[in-house]
Amino acid sequence: MKIMVGGTFSPLHDGHKKLLSRSFELAGDDGHVIIGLSTDQFAGDKNHPIAPYEKRKEILTTFIQDSGYSATWNVIPLEDRYGATLDTDFDALVVSEETFPVSLEINRLRKERGRKKVDIHQITCVLADDGRWISSTRIYRGEIDDHGRVIR
Amino acid sequence: MKIMVGGTFSPLHDGHKKLLSRSFELAGDDGHVIIGLSTDQFAGDKNHPIAPYEKRKEILTTFIQDSGYSATWNVIPLEDRYGATLDTDFDALVVSEETFPVSLEINRLRKERGRKKVDIHQITCVLADDGRWISSTRIYRGEIDDHGRVIR
Repeated sequence: MKIMVGGTFSPLHDGHKKLLSRSFELAGDDGHVIIGLSTDQFAGDKNHPIAPYEKRKEILTTFIQDSGYSATWNVIPLEDRYGATLDTDFDALVVSEETFPVSLEINRLRKERGRKKVDIHQITCVLADDGRWISSTRIYRGEIDDHGRVIR
Repeated sequence: MKIMVGGTFSPLHDGHKKLLSRSFELAGDDGHVIIGLSTDQFAGDKNHPIAPYEKRKEILTTFIQDSGYSATWNVIPLEDRYGATLDTDFDALVVSEETFPVSLEINRLRKERGRKKVDIHQITCVLADDGRWISSTRIYRGEIDDHGRVIR
């Protein structure tokens, strides 16, 4: 299958890794994964500092290469919440609980444009040891590390 | 992965086949799929006649066996919209656009019970040749066949 997934991935934490791994599993050995990576401008809306695009792309690339998936993949710049999802032919979108509402908007907008709706795979956010979501903001604040371990 | 999916599957049309195939693909070679099959009593709420449970189970079994998936699987009776999803440990629920709202309820109820929420995979309904969803009701009414071909 042809899968699309997106994010800022800074820092690349266990929640992001689940999102990416699941995208490759869903794609299957012969599939393709398109990863929309937030541009620095789009990521600028976040409430914590973000590594530059090329640095984030490098870390993402290393993680994917080390994971050893067979599917092909490419990274494209994500300039807004929809990115290329409205005008690309693909099978399924992989999202987190946080970004699930955007996937419904994407299907509504695709339909308006006369495009086929896509399947949606929503992963449950990975929980930190304290039972709350792992998020980049929490890691930035020093509450948890990138595996969700509480920092005391 | 351990996957749960449910339905009445009468008649078994291309939309159901997509739901089942996707469940096995997601489960992977070493995974397990639990298929909740509506009991005759629960299915009795449908607005069209339904084949008896054992007959539906037989057709379902034949389809799965013929598909040649490696994952293990079993069929259990589905007595209400939640079935065993609230009290079973599993990874992901596969639903259609129609039943997606139930998956959100399931995660809410699981959380209330202190259980881990599950990932949700929502497939887009298969469209008939006339661009509307394939559904058992439409097949029963004689509008389309089980592959979504319009009957004139």
